[in-house]
Amino acid sequence: MSMEIGVGFLGAGTVGSALIRRLIYESDAISSKTGLQLAVRGIAVRDTTKQRGVEIPPGLLTDDPGTVVDNPDVRIVVEVMGGLEPAGELALRALRSGKAVVTANKELMAARGSALLAAAEDSGVSLLFEAAVGGGIPIIRPLSESLAGERITSVMGIVNGTTNFILTRMIEDRAPYDEVLAEAQRLGYAEADPAADVKGADAASKAAILASLAFGSWVDGNQVPREGIEGLQLLDFDYARTLGYTPKLLAIAEDSDDGVAVRVHPTLVPVDHPLASVRGATNAVFVSGPSIGELLFTGPGAGGEPTATAILGDVIACARELLARNEVRSRIRFAQGRVRDMADVTTKWFLRFTVVDRPGVLARIAAVFGSHDVSIKSVWQEGRGVEATLLLVTHESPERHLQAAVSDLAALDVVSEVATVLRVHGDEP
Amino acid sequence: MSMEIGVGFLGAGTVGSALIRRLIYESDAISSKTGLQLAVRGIAVRDTTKQRGVEIPPGLLTDDPGTVVDNPDVRIVVEVMGGLEPAGELALRALRSGKAVVTANKELMAARGSALLAAAEDSGVSLLFEAAVGGGIPIIRPLSESLAGERITSVMGIVNGTTNFILTRMIEDRAPYDEVLAEAQRLGYAEADPAADVKGADAASKAAILASLAFGSWVDGNQVPREGIEGLQLLDFDYARTLGYTPKLLAIAEDSDDGVAVRVHPTLVPVDHPLASVRGATNAVFVSGPSIGELLFTGPGAGGEPTATAILGDVIACARELLARNEVRSRIRFAQGRVRDMADVTTKWFLRFTVVDRPGVLARIAAVFGSHDVSIKSVWQEGRGVEATLLLVTHESPERHLQAAVSDLAALDVVSEVATVLRVHGDEP
Repeated sequence: MSMEIGVGFLGAGTVGSALIRRLIYESDAISSKTGLQLAVRGIAVRDTTKQRGVEIPPGLLTDDPGTVVDNPDVRIVVEVMGGLEPAGELALRALRSGKAVVTANKELMAARGSALLAAAEDSGVSLLFEAAVGGGIPIIRPLSESLAGERITSVMGIVNGTTNFILTRMIEDRAPYDEVLAEAQRLGYAEADPAADVKGADAASKAAILASLAFGSWVDGNQVPREGIEGLQLLDFDYARTLGYTPKLLAIAEDSDDGVAVRVHPTLVPVDHPLASVRGATNAVFVSGPSIGELLFTGPGAGGEPTATAILGDVIACARELLARNEVRSRIRFAQGRVRDMADVTTKWFLRFTVVDRPGVLARIAAVFGSHDVSIKSVWQEGRGVEATLLLVTHESPERHLQAAVSDLAALDVVSEVATVLRVHGDEP
Repeated sequence: MSMEIGVGFLGAGTVGSALIRRLIYESDAISSKTGLQLAVRGIAVRDTTKQRGVEIPPGLLTDDPGTVVDNPDVRIVVEVMGGLEPAGELALRALRSGKAVVTANKELMAARGSALLAAAEDSGVSLLFEAAVGGGIPIIRPLSESLAGERITSVMGIVNGTTNFILTRMIEDRAPYDEVLAEAQRLGYAEADPAADVKGADAASKAAILASLAFGSWVDGNQVPREGIEGLQLLDFDYARTLGYTPKLLAIAEDSDDGVAVRVHPTLVPVDHPLASVRGATNAVFVSGPSIGELLFTGPGAGGEPTATAILGDVIACARELLARNEVRSRIRFAQGRVRDMADVTTKWFLRFTVVDRPGVLARIAAVFGSHDVSIKSVWQEGRGVEATLLLVTHESPERHLQAAVSDLAALDVVSEVATVLRVHGDEP
């Protein structure tokens, strides 16, 4: 016979409803696998009359989240309402009153994770957030527990399904960005307001969380430089393809003696790189370190059911801890991190620009790169005549130098336009 | 200030030495990342005079493992000696005396895991074994914790680096089995006695552990049917290639209403399947369930340093638990599992056989398959004349039916030889 453990919900959207359904209607399966009796004790939503994807027994719904957080029968609070407030204040209140908190809220963890984890530690309770990154892929627990003894040097990958879906469809359907975005919205892969996804904010929050766990010093989400996929053109994907690359929106976190470098931006990866074959809404994360070499985690990066599985794993972990001891300690400790200036981060670069096709042009362009210490790996010219298109790939160069070179380039009378500047990942194809 | 936690070693081979080096010479890095002070208190080895890959401070080595297990300063015992005995008896003694145990011993866990976990639970201590499967890949903790709420339906993949190395080299170097095995032994990828790897026993132990964790009912390693890679011929790899397949030694665990099916055997996978591109000593494991869809974990499946990282993650988890509470509970509960008879497992099949080339042969062969309810998907004939080679791929069929058909086939006067019978995975290429 095992003790029943009360679970309260803040929010009941797609993910929340999926988990509520399992806790209420599949409790026997959970119990037979884990030995735990988990009971939903309250569900706070904005609109208690709204139809949801699950039939909720009467008496559980409330529009006052305080009654869930303050309910003495609720030992574990599941926060799936999203956004910074009131989610942050409610999570803090739950932790301070000694309840374990499980959240899928990447924005909240990226902005306030350090403070929330400290509050959890002060109260001796758990704050778990496996679902905040990678949807159904176990990545938070492997990073913070399995790899706790590794000096992780980089975490890198595709962490936003919406943008990966858009890039995949653009390339495979040869369709422009706006058209694919509209399709993604129709299919439910993109929000009505797609800004958080397509501008890179969602991926930046996840990059901050991954970097914090990997390197052990907390990185705030707003410290992460990000570029989205808006404005990317099929034309450049075609050019990249001829050079052996395909575009992906990558979150990249690297540790070095100079601090932690974290960023999100579209990146060209070689077509035979494992990330190149990650299609649609799938996520894939590489973790590297001197001892483990390279690990790759791949799976569904979003969706109600996969994300509900991740949250349920955390709820079960909280419940096991509550049963095993009265006092639960937060497992993760953080120092304040030092984040490197993006301008110091080195990468290879792909540039496309239009030039006046006359003798000596390439020499002048090469001189500009040379004067900023940017070494050119290869140049292709397409078309001849008054205007020609130049494609150029550089060797590794700090962003600071590249941007200065681009600025000087744009000022050259022989350069009509610097049309595209993209980062390149991996060895040349 | 944090309390020092004593760690004792049973064994100091490649993996043990790698971990001992980190605990002794990189303790500052571990401490700054985790806040833990881990101190090596004793190392039991067979030969205390042997040179090892790490300089061991005087006084730590002993040839009496009992002094490590019984040392009151040792709170965590790391078992890396391998084999069933005395490892099993020592691990049990450590658990019963209230010490946490971390083991990399797949053979031991597959044979006695259920009893050892019960002993851990009785004593209120942890028994962790992340390194027992997948080397440096976090797979045990994701299965038992992150996915605790998922009804996992299958776990499948490449879990033995030695055989994958051999198969990769056979195909890429067009070299026969014996030659590649000798090379693998020279390079240290295969043991002097390669039986455990090439006969599938190592993979069978890992399959048993994965199945136990995935399905929540313990599967004994010796219950797992296994076929190794001995006797596989390059000729068949070439034929398979022309049909769009490549051979892999797969561990497969599937759950169904009829029980758990677990097995290890060479399998043909489509050349564009993610497992087909897993080369050399890399491991890759797919985990599937109705909610998470498909997860893929890829990384180094063996090697001292990656395996040491996995063990260190477990040691850190044990230490955190010891600090957080006096009483530690084993986290995993198991019912006794029901393992399906291999003969009931259905799969697609590839057959190569030699026939007398005369009219009506194919009809007689088809009749044999039909009489055993085995449906033929496609047939290729190569060569004409007195003897012809037939390649045949079936639809899904239970092993029982296929074996009966093969037995009848061999008895046909028009069939000279049934040369090869291999299982096929995945959709047709």
